[in-house]
Amino acid sequence: MAIPRRHPALPDPGTRCRVALLGFGTVGTAVARILCEQPPAGVELTHIFNRGVSRKRVDWVPAGVRWTEDIGDVLDSPADIVVELMGGIEPAGGWVERALDAGKSVVTANKQLIAHRGASLLSLARERRCHLRFEGSVAGGIPIIAALRDGLAGDRISRVLGILNGTCNYILTSMADGGTAFGTALQQAQELGYAEADPTDDIEGYDARAKLAILCAAALRADVQPEQIATRAITVIEAVDFAHARQLGCTIRQVSHAEWDGQGGLHATVRPTLVYRESALARVAGSQNIVVLRGQYGGETVFSGSGAGGGPTSVAVVSDIAAIARLESERSEAAALRAPTHVRGEFVTPQYLRFVVRDRPGIIARIAGAMEQHGINIDAVLQLPYPTKQALPFVVTTEACPPSVLAEAMRQISELDFHVQPPVDLPMLIGDAA
Amino acid sequence: MAIPRRHPALPDPGTRCRVALLGFGTVGTAVARILCEQPPAGVELTHIFNRGVSRKRVDWVPAGVRWTEDIGDVLDSPADIVVELMGGIEPAGGWVERALDAGKSVVTANKQLIAHRGASLLSLARERRCHLRFEGSVAGGIPIIAALRDGLAGDRISRVLGILNGTCNYILTSMADGGTAFGTALQQAQELGYAEADPTDDIEGYDARAKLAILCAAALRADVQPEQIATRAITVIEAVDFAHARQLGCTIRQVSHAEWDGQGGLHATVRPTLVYRESALARVAGSQNIVVLRGQYGGETVFSGSGAGGGPTSVAVVSDIAAIARLESERSEAAALRAPTHVRGEFVTPQYLRFVVRDRPGIIARIAGAMEQHGINIDAVLQLPYPTKQALPFVVTTEACPPSVLAEAMRQISELDFHVQPPVDLPMLIGDAA
Repeated sequence: MAIPRRHPALPDPGTRCRVALLGFGTVGTAVARILCEQPPAGVELTHIFNRGVSRKRVDWVPAGVRWTEDIGDVLDSPADIVVELMGGIEPAGGWVERALDAGKSVVTANKQLIAHRGASLLSLARERRCHLRFEGSVAGGIPIIAALRDGLAGDRISRVLGILNGTCNYILTSMADGGTAFGTALQQAQELGYAEADPTDDIEGYDARAKLAILCAAALRADVQPEQIATRAITVIEAVDFAHARQLGCTIRQVSHAEWDGQGGLHATVRPTLVYRESALARVAGSQNIVVLRGQYGGETVFSGSGAGGGPTSVAVVSDIAAIARLESERSEAAALRAPTHVRGEFVTPQYLRFVVRDRPGIIARIAGAMEQHGINIDAVLQLPYPTKQALPFVVTTEACPPSVLAEAMRQISELDFHVQPPVDLPMLIGDAA
Repeated sequence: MAIPRRHPALPDPGTRCRVALLGFGTVGTAVARILCEQPPAGVELTHIFNRGVSRKRVDWVPAGVRWTEDIGDVLDSPADIVVELMGGIEPAGGWVERALDAGKSVVTANKQLIAHRGASLLSLARERRCHLRFEGSVAGGIPIIAALRDGLAGDRISRVLGILNGTCNYILTSMADGGTAFGTALQQAQELGYAEADPTDDIEGYDARAKLAILCAAALRADVQPEQIATRAITVIEAVDFAHARQLGCTIRQVSHAEWDGQGGLHATVRPTLVYRESALARVAGSQNIVVLRGQYGGETVFSGSGAGGGPTSVAVVSDIAAIARLESERSEAAALRAPTHVRGEFVTPQYLRFVVRDRPGIIARIAGAMEQHGINIDAVLQLPYPTKQALPFVVTTEACPPSVLAEAMRQISELDFHVQPPVDLPMLIGDAA
């Protein structure tokens, strides 16, 4: 019998698996707590690294754990698993690389790092025969990476839909429920700790598109950089859009959406989207997350839970540590990633167009004429009672059309002289169960 | 360095992993299709076993696959993985045992076998250093076992709630939506193929309790036999209960529910239950399944998808095959199961009590008196408009009380002389988000 492969970086059965923690913020503290209170079998916390570490010390960590602000103390230690919870691409990325290069396994919740450099880090890990796991980097409390690697490996996933950013979902659901304006909803979210002081990454969609890029790799086996994903901020949404959406049986969510186009290209977008109020996406309230997968054989499977926060994310991280400690192999004989021929956002869907105009006769006719020229069929025109004719909002919905064709028509319409503010167009995700 | 452990039953890297299929019914056929159309890396279908196999042959299976009705052909073959899809405890259980004993890994979707003998089969597999996987045995399309083993291993799960039987859910949702009587809904379900000709296992709750027993082990680490789980048939539910439930903001579902009682005992029930219409459980329509887990650190995580059927279940089975082929180890250093000191159904919840009476003055007073004697507080009395006083339904809801105390009160109330049919009591699961 041939001598089997093994992971040289992993301890022999029966010995302890030593864990070093990089970063002692919210998630790092929560991870340390679990590792101290109920560690997975065989797992031992040995190092905690943080800048200004003397301010960070807590009394519930055993005396044997080494606190340090020198990364060399960790990288040169005999730690078996390095847990990176600092965030940001550098210096975290370089340190993860050095750890893997030294044959240490790495667990991280760093979405930007995995989204941008996951493929090369995974191949370094394979080469060095150690592990890289990142369950905490997407939808913290939802074990979506485990589900994809293990429970759904037998299927071919054709579509990923998700609400991946709790801050945007909190803002949009409070706008929907309370008729709150965007600015007010954002401010409330900041006061309650659901949004950062600088919320740019969240509301611009940069956070969600990094997570979608990771799901593109894990679910669709597609090699995509976050910057390739068409992304639109939720700042365009106003209270009046929720009122109109309600008339259409819909609400508005920041939806992350990716699918192969059947010809080697990939459609991928993160944008505010109309979804039916009865849909799984609409029912995700507050800062929750959801992932909806469509499989060729298994149909739709829905996962929802806490998107972020110390508790849920720390469970993901500790589960990864436990899995590595169980010597599970992930040097994948799984299919390699495919690079799409291109990545676009051309999902053909019905569209919601919101205009704010100085009212006068003939406006609908002008808009309808432009639509007709571009072969776009109008489905409905909606106008709610409104006190003034000087800035009158109304909505046009269209039958399914390609966004690029719509963009042409909207460019032409924008040049007309009755607009009080630029028109807003949103896709309507109403063709299916999700 | 010590010589590492390995799985003697698994092929050397680079060689094929040979799969023998026991059972070529709906799921078996679907599994064979995936193994022929897009097999996981390194996996090869070598045997198909079925009684009367000559009637089963299909032309899309490669000529090299051996069709047999002699189980010895499989057990004595060099197959690495035996996939058991026959159902029933015997002869399937004996054959699975022989396969494991011979060092072959086993994948099964057989809920009764795993619920009744999973613990001993798993320990046989560990002893023989081979694998036993059973993702397809619970909630077919939902990768709940993988999620628990891998993505949530770092948490301590305190509660499992589920809708685990698609037939019951189909019947109850069509009763709720269409005002259909139970018998009619069952007949429709049978005509549409959602219910068996003999639906006993489904409507009595035996199917769901087997699945709940498996989840008790996988999520709560509790060693429970299906027969220990208090189970009630959905046949008690009538159209009038849905009308009253609606007035309470609720609907009715067959809910599987288990949690540790904090003193070494386990609460576990499968029974028709009132749930808020806004809850995740209420939103599960038709033959879909859902599992809601509550973790100490991660909060609530919700999984939903197709509960059964060839497609979803076959994905679960092929995913298990792929995982074994990837040489993933599951000889668990995971915590051993705990045997509860007892298993009961004493969930303290509000209760829904439905009476059908020959109307006359003083009935409510008699019922309220009996309740008061047992220290049970009445929350509301509901009576919908009804054409006759000879068989008048009405509903009493109570504040949370132990089912055993309620049972005493109901025994006393049942003896009163105004009943036209026996009273029905249902728990109301309305205290939380699920």
